Order: sequence, then C-alpha cells, then structure tokens
Amino acid sequence: MSGEEDAKGSGEGVEDTHEAIMGATYRALCKHGYAHLTMQDIADEFDKSRPLLHYHYDTKDELMLAFVDNMIGWVGGQLARSDTEAPLDRMEAYIDGFVIDPGEEDRETFALALLELRVQAVHNDEFRSRLSRHYENNVGTVADIIADGIEAEVFREVDPDEVGEFVYTSLVGARMYQVTMGAQHASRRARDALAEFVVDDLLVDGRTTGEYSGEGW
Amino acid sequence: MSGEEDAKGSGEGVEDTHEAIMGATYRALCKHGYAHLTMQDIADEFDKSRPLLHYHYDTKDELMLAFVDNMIGWVGGQLARSDTEAPLDRMEAYIDGFVIDPGEEDRETFALALLELRVQAVHNDEFRSRLSRHYENNVGTVADIIADGIEAEVFREVDPDEVGEFVYTSLVGARMYQVTMGAQHASRRARDALAEFVVDDLLVDGRTTGEYSGEGW
Repeated sequence: MSGEEDAKGSGEGVEDTHEAIMGATYRALCKHGYAHLTMQDIADEFDKSRPLLHYHYDTKDELMLAFVDNMIGWVGGQLARSDTEAPLDRMEAYIDGFVIDPGEEDRETFALALLELRVQAVHNDEFRSRLSRHYENNVGTVADIIADGIEAEVFREVDPDEVGEFVYTSLVGARMYQVTMGAQHASRRARDALAEFVVDDLLVDGRTTGEYSGEGW
Repeated sequence: MSGEEDAKGSGEGVEDTHEAIMGATYRALCKHGYAHLTMQDIADEFDKSRPLLHYHYDTKDELMLAFVDNMIGWVGGQLARSDTEAPLDRMEAYIDGFVIDPGEEDRETFALALLELRVQAVHNDEFRSRLSRHYENNVGTVADIIADGIEAEVFREVDPDEVGEFVYTSLVGARMYQVTMGAQHASRRARDALAEFVVDDLLVDGRTTGEYSGEGW
C-alpha cells in the first residue's frame, strides 16, 4: 500500500512502476538465470524501494507470470518490427532476431532463463498457458510474414503456419545448444541454413536470398 | 559389497547388473522425469535388491552420469542404425528416429528428462561434458550420412557438419515444444519440413524425396 503511494507521491503512475519492475526482472534474469533467482536479486536491480516491489508481487512465481505476460507483447513486437513492408526483409529481421553472437552474454543468460521457464512450465499450468501463448505468438508472427509474402507473390504457396513453426522451432533448437552446451555460433549457423534451405526455396523467381540484396542476407 | 556378491552368486556378471541398472534408470526417467526423480523410483524399477543399486551408485547424480555415458552409445547406435547402406534411406531413418507420435508418452517423458538434464548441465561441468559429447555424436552421425551421400553422388556438395547440425538441432527444437508446451505433432511436422526443404534440396538429380520411393518419405 505505502509502496503504491510512494510511486504516486513521486509523480509516477502504476504503468511506470510496472515497467520499472519488468525491467529489473529482465536484468536480474540476464545476470542470474531463473533457477536460483531470488526476489532480492530483482530488488537489487530495482532503483525504487524494495517494499514497493513486494507491494506489487508477493512471490517470485507471481512476478515471473507477470514478466512472461509482459514479454509476450514485447518479444512479439520486436520480432514483427521492421523498417520495411517487404516480406523478404521482414523475414530476415525475424530470423536475425534469434542470432546470439559471441559476447552477448546477457542474451545467452536470458535465453537460458526462458528455457528453464519452459521446463518449469510442464509442472505449472499457469506458466504453461502463458508460455504456450508466447510460442503461438512467435510462430504466428513469422506465419504472417510468409502469408504476406505469398500474397505479394514473393513466396510460393506453402502452409504459412507449418513453415513458420519450422522456422521458429529450428532457431530455438539451435539457440538451446548454444546456451546449454556452448555450441558457439549455432544460432548464426541455423540462420544461414534457414536462408539457404527454406527462404531460398520459398522465393518464387528462383533467385536466392544472396542475389536479392548485397547486404543483409 | 554384499550386493556385488549377490550378483555374482546368482551367476550374473557386472555387465548384466550394469545393464539392469541402466534399464531401470531409463524406465524411471520415462515415468517420473528428472527433476523429482529419487533413487527409490529407480530402485522400484530394478528387479534386483535395492542394496545392490546403492552398492554401485551412492547418489542420483552419480547414477545419472553413468546413464548419460551409456545413453551416448545407445542413442548413437540407434540413430546410425539402418538396414541399408543407401544414404537417402539412412537419412530417413535418422530423421524418423526423432518423431514422437501421439500415445508415445514414455518417449515424451524421456525427451523431457533429457531437456532437464541439458538445463542442469549449465551449472554442472560433468553433465555438460557428457551431454556435449552426446550432442557431437548426434550431429556427427547425420554429418557422416550426408558425407557418404555426397561421395555416392546422391547429395550435392555441402558442409556435412553444418547441415547435420541444422538437421539435428531443428528436430530437437520441435521436440522441445512438443514435450513442454504440448505442441502435438510438432516433431512430425519438423520431419516433413526437413524432407521438403533440406533433403529435397540436397538431392543432386532434382528429384524429390517423395519421388524416390512410394513409401517411407
């Protein structure tokens, strides 16, 4: 209660506090992963009072559910984001979004935390329903790109959902080995394989991704 | 000690006891998964005395390391196994080995246990080095098939390791969503996508996997 009033007192709304908590949770997950994460770790990343954090979330699980809800929208937005309408460019932006290059340790730890959450979800219905939605959104985003590409006659006729699922799950599979087994560059190699085998095959005019633009692909 | 003597007394060797323990561990993992697995669960699947189990392995982690070692050879053998020398048929057998169809609940639970072990491995060097070997073996098996196919002029020139890694990690990625999120048939759809996009593309004569044989692919 007092935390909420603190927030209002400092002229910030509930929205700002929510965003600040989500940001702190993200940073804590990037640093510590999920398994041994404590509320204290999150509080350490939160630049407001610890009581304010506890006012909003009693337990780590409760906070984590809110975080997954928040992430669904954010990651979906990131994956759908592209400066262009062109389906091939949007496809490239989507696939590139999954590549983790050497030195991006925060992103590795975060990907690992997500993996831990997925395993956790098997025995936790609320996590499961949230993460299922995350999965469906991520598949849906690339399926939309493929469907738009077919309509624009850039891609040949395929089932957008099936190809979209393959694109998404293959990227996640490669990332998993990269973050759990230290298979360096696995996500970049998966990206290159998708360009060569899937995206090239989708292009109706027999050109390859490499011929489409000098850069990017 | 007495357990070992029991085994010898009943006319069985250390090899048989080892195999029996590995079998019990496999069945216990299929039933219970890894996270909450206890030595008692394994003992319940072991048709010999519980002291004999404890004589060989003091802790669950110790047993689990032996199990992963054992699995590396067994899974590798299964994946490499095919009645034929033909690279395309061996490729099909390899990819089909990852499909989990509805009703195969034991295989789902086991795949999930493997996933839990991989996550665990991040913080456990011994698990990590064992599971890395498992990963390399699985990639190596399909890379060998591709290399043989190139030599036999069935497949076009590609980097066998890179394409092999993509085949393997994409299958594992799809299985992960099937077993954690209940994405039914995801592993079969990944198999079909690999046939359409990767294997068809590898075939030098422009035929498709479907045209090669009426059955199988």
